[in-house]
Amino acid sequence: MIIVMKPETPQETIDGMLEKIEAKGLKPLHMPGAERVVLGALGDERVLSELSFDADPHVESVKPILAPYKLVSRELHPHDTIVTVGDASFGGQRFGLVAGPCAVENETQLLASAKAAKDAGASVLRAGAYKPRTSPYSFQGRGPVGLEILADVGREVGLPVVTEVIETADVDLVASKADMLQVGARNMQNFALLKAVGAAGKPVFLKRGMSAKVDDLLLAAEYIMAAGCEDVILCERGIRTFETATRNTLDLAAVPLLKQKSHLPVVVDPSHGTGKRDLVAPMALAAAAAGADGVMVEVHFDPPAALSDGPQSLYPDQMKALGDRLKALLPVVGRTF
Amino acid sequence: MIIVMKPETPQETIDGMLEKIEAKGLKPLHMPGAERVVLGALGDERVLSELSFDADPHVESVKPILAPYKLVSRELHPHDTIVTVGDASFGGQRFGLVAGPCAVENETQLLASAKAAKDAGASVLRAGAYKPRTSPYSFQGRGPVGLEILADVGREVGLPVVTEVIETADVDLVASKADMLQVGARNMQNFALLKAVGAAGKPVFLKRGMSAKVDDLLLAAEYIMAAGCEDVILCERGIRTFETATRNTLDLAAVPLLKQKSHLPVVVDPSHGTGKRDLVAPMALAAAAAGADGVMVEVHFDPPAALSDGPQSLYPDQMKALGDRLKALLPVVGRTF
Amino acid sequence: MIIVMKPETPQETIDGMLEKIEAKGLKPLHMPGAERVVLGALGDERVLSELSFDADPHVESVKPILAPYKLVSRELHPHDTIVTVGDASFGGQRFGLVAGPCAVENETQLLASAKAAKDAGASVLRAGAYKPRTSPYSFQGRGPVGLEILADVGREVGLPVVTEVIETADVDLVASKADMLQVGARNMQNFALLKAVGAAGKPVFLKRGMSAKVDDLLLAAEYIMAAGCEDVILCERGIRTFETATRNTLDLAAVPLLKQKSHLPVVVDPSHGTGKRDLVAPMALAAAAAGADGVMVEVHFDPPAALSDGPQSLYPDQMKALGDRLKALLPVVGRTF
Amino acid sequence: MIIVMKPETPQETIDGMLEKIEAKGLKPLHMPGAERVVLGALGDERVLSELSFDADPHVESVKPILAPYKLVSRELHPHDTIVTVGDASFGGQRFGLVAGPCAVENETQLLASAKAAKDAGASVLRAGAYKPRTSPYSFQGRGPVGLEILADVGREVGLPVVTEVIETADVDLVASKADMLQVGARNMQNFALLKAVGAAGKPVFLKRGMSAKVDDLLLAAEYIMAAGCEDVILCERGIRTFETATRNTLDLAAVPLLKQKSHLPVVVDPSHGTGKRDLVAPMALAAAAAGADGVMVEVHFDPPAALSDGPQSLYPDQMKALGDRLKALLPVVGRTF
Repeated sequence: MIIVMKPETPQETIDGMLEKIEAKGLKPLHMPGAERVVLGALGDERVLSELSFDADPHVESVKPILAPYKLVSRELHPHDTIVTVGDASFGGQRFGLVAGPCAVENETQLLASAKAAKDAGASVLRAGAYKPRTSPYSFQGRGPVGLEILADVGREVGLPVVTEVIETADVDLVASKADMLQVGARNMQNFALLKAVGAAGKPVFLKRGMSAKVDDLLLAAEYIMAAGCEDVILCERGIRTFETATRNTLDLAAVPLLKQKSHLPVVVDPSHGTGKRDLVAPMALAAAAAGADGVMVEVHFDPPAALSDGPQSLYPDQMKALGDRLKALLPVVGRTF
Repeated sequence: MIIVMKPETPQETIDGMLEKIEAKGLKPLHMPGAERVVLGALGDERVLSELSFDADPHVESVKPILAPYKLVSRELHPHDTIVTVGDASFGGQRFGLVAGPCAVENETQLLASAKAAKDAGASVLRAGAYKPRTSPYSFQGRGPVGLEILADVGREVGLPVVTEVIETADVDLVASKADMLQVGARNMQNFALLKAVGAAGKPVFLKRGMSAKVDDLLLAAEYIMAAGCEDVILCERGIRTFETATRNTLDLAAVPLLKQKSHLPVVVDPSHGTGKRDLVAPMALAAAAAGADGVMVEVHFDPPAALSDGPQSLYPDQMKALGDRLKALLPVVGRTF
Repeated sequence: MIIVMKPETPQETIDGMLEKIEAKGLKPLHMPGAERVVLGALGDERVLSELSFDADPHVESVKPILAPYKLVSRELHPHDTIVTVGDASFGGQRFGLVAGPCAVENETQLLASAKAAKDAGASVLRAGAYKPRTSPYSFQGRGPVGLEILADVGREVGLPVVTEVIETADVDLVASKADMLQVGARNMQNFALLKAVGAAGKPVFLKRGMSAKVDDLLLAAEYIMAAGCEDVILCERGIRTFETATRNTLDLAAVPLLKQKSHLPVVVDPSHGTGKRDLVAPMALAAAAAGADGVMVEVHFDPPAALSDGPQSLYPDQMKALGDRLKALLPVVGRTF
Repeated sequence: MIIVMKPETPQETIDGMLEKIEAKGLKPLHMPGAERVVLGALGDERVLSELSFDADPHVESVKPILAPYKLVSRELHPHDTIVTVGDASFGGQRFGLVAGPCAVENETQLLASAKAAKDAGASVLRAGAYKPRTSPYSFQGRGPVGLEILADVGREVGLPVVTEVIETADVDLVASKADMLQVGARNMQNFALLKAVGAAGKPVFLKRGMSAKVDDLLLAAEYIMAAGCEDVILCERGIRTFETATRNTLDLAAVPLLKQKSHLPVVVDPSHGTGKRDLVAPMALAAAAAGADGVMVEVHFDPPAALSDGPQSLYPDQMKALGDRLKALLPVVGRTF
């Protein structure tokens, strides 16, 4: 940690800070310059976070040297983590295709949509039973009934299922029905929920928040791993920017960046990332080319009848075409489908 | 609702949509133009939201006419709502000053900080017992013990207290100890939590999410009101933008805008809005001048020793000076302190 | 154009607006609803822009139906425009690789870097003689001398050259030396410059501004086409968002979106888009997979010695490897190199 | 400057960097830690910018200690600069009110609008003769004729005038007619223009770019001061964010922040900052409360007839009311009107 002091800081303030650094077991450094005094703290500076040196009015700025996370970091865990969900896996040579409708609406809808996903090569079925919606007047999901339908349809088509959990109280129930728990973008910093899903004994699919920096996402994953879960998949799904032509701005550069910083698999959701059906396939292919370990795509057997996310849901034939294009592209980037 | 169709949409698609509009009890309109056909739906268009016309591939865009919220809207409720918390009130002629430390650390710290708040003219005491923190290695709050300390100190200094609740399971406990429940920025779209606090029988202090548009904030408030709570205070606390010189970008224009759109009181938090102690007072005064119904300010009896948010916490003498300046300014904008 | 009136607008105001719409040759529509009156104007609504209906205090909002641009629109020009620069072309089946150093520093540097570009398969050489720099204390480019060096080196390696022009006064000189004129991100809304380069008789390479929406970029291109130039290449190079882990946020979804809206070729600059050498190749491949007509990549024969943009410049062997990977990937998306 | 090296950097690389630091006349520091080696360079680190250490693949990050600007910095120039324009001044005890229509349309329009500005207490008249417009189909300004009208009307009402210059070639002409030259938001990083206006011998009114950080604005002002101009006024006018309810997001916290970092006066433009007439007065008052040295406000004698920016232009009576409210508020913050 580097601490830049304001001009004319009293020597006793500086001495006090150096003592605090030493008392925490770190090596203190004192660098007097022409215009500023700079202090350093070498060692595991994370122990200094509670000292909050930046709260001192003599401090101009504090610049960390080490990343604020550990468990998710590639530095201490150089090899890729492979997360297995049923017969699917993420993080190794195989590319994962998670597909399904936004929400469980009923058995007919889910089964038809799940078959479209499976036909296209999906290895995991997605569908929401609990739906966090911006407006209280929108469809809020089928809840426990939806969970049952999802589990039944997953069995019928032979795919493991992932579904979102939005409340700590529901974690056990969802974990008993689903093969993987999803934490949605709006809950990425719902820390109580992160701790609960991390302790549930299932793989966790963690979506990046709309205003989360890459480091915020990694710290959210750190919460989950700190709670005992080693199988976390990170999902880039678009961030909120000034651009309104797309629902979100899909930050694909986050894919190779996350892979550098962390050993966890990275999946891309081009459906929420763009909000537009016509942009989903190009962005799914781009994600694969950028090195993603998989994509999550929304497909509905009849999008105009969908109770949510219809505009970004693929038709079954579009889903099939995307599966075929992924199959052709993946070998070029050293993957198989 | 205005629906713009793509060129060359088949007439039967158009006819089908007009029928659906009519079937929902709205008045359909058909406006054929040179390049596009435009459809309209007049009436309470919110009933159309489940039809999701924008999921139809023939639809180019859908433009709502009416606001998506009702209960929070000033249109149906033209008079200002006044929210009363203990002896304090928000939304009328009196300006509310909510002050206190970021977190409950211990009795000594809270009492000294609370006295500084009270001396400066605060009408409500704030302090967090449950702290949502970006890193799992940061101080996470004192929990139930902190709630007890807060309630005790509030009684001792004679101020009502507001504190954040971060999980549905804690709502009853927090509601039994606090005079007002706070929903933090990271939980603004934790809809399960919004429903729970809305049903808890206490006023709710709702902070705007870091990436929430003004309409998102109003829809979050709509969740709370729809759950039975009429006493909601909206809080502007800064949004996340590209500017890194401040912790967030305080969007003060949201104050008069929210007051136009809604009858609910609007409070500004310049502490989180700027993240810098030296900017808190100017922004608190600016908030008052812009028409805010109050401000929420962090004060700590010893900021460099604070376990969280030290850099943005005022010293007691700065808090006092801010109180004095607010007292001088408020009459100019027709308020009293 | 759809005009939503505020409640209780006087009838005479409405009548006056309908008359103005008709007077401009458009078909006026009057749609009285329960809560709002809505007006419409069908036809080429761009003629209404000078009336600025939204300036009337009785108007709640104005929603355009048609895109604000014409010449760049795919609607009136459905076939892809192919821009030819020397032996290179953009917009057809061939994928264009523009490469070279950020700036012309001297003959040795440029020649070595240009050879690295050519070896990797580049079809156009890039290098800046005029450098817009955030700080006045940074290297500002070699100016006219740099232009000469660039032209010489381009001839020597047998590649057409593109270089940035930053001032109207320089347009003729730059046009006499370069095969294509580049307008940089910071000048995307320097409208005097857009008009001048549009009249210079050379193809124009237009970079998206850091805070430009897709429609702003298309309107900037409209300025250039309106000035007489038919050969405009649009370049996505990242936008400014809250994410600081990368220099900019590369908005790859803009590629298929721009291709839908416009007939102009679209090129991606992953060097500025990420600012990090290690992210350039993954994003270049992703751009190709997303349907881009080419990429612009910075390469320097000795990046740590570069006077600008060293951190994002590829080493020659990285450039060669990227060329090879593009060659392998492009056939999968129906392109050749 | 602090340079963090990647793990396992060869010693010779480190030695080479320390030598380069010393060769530039700075004091090098070597801080070997457990996980990283950290280097330091103490002294005027701005001389290191051309070395671009961050281009070396062994370097993890470079953290500057000193601000990148000098002339605009308060550190070397602790007293407030007062910029005088005719009888108006900015930066001292008096608060400046710049007002007028967006554009010069004709003599009648400008004179009537200028009188409204003067009646409200304006000390400087604003109006654009050259208008940078997003669309080539929008009104582009009256050009030289507009300049003449502006100068005439300024004389007639007895106010100095400020107007925008959008091209280097026009600087001399505009400087011969106007009392202050404005650089607009879109040209804030048109560095050729900054140099030209800095050498023109007139005060410069510099607007913050839509995606400019506070430091970018200060560096743009540094260009102008480096070209010889000591009289620069900084103008906060809103930045581009995800919020679409207002035209821009007015970043009022930038006011006290800029005043801390720089000795230059700071003015706020709530008209462009909000884009909505009803929000202009609250934000002008907030700006005054936040410590701004003045505001720039658009007023038009007949806003619905304005050729540009009508929706954000005040009516004359609103302008007058704002002047009266400012008069009442300013003494509270130690200013006079």
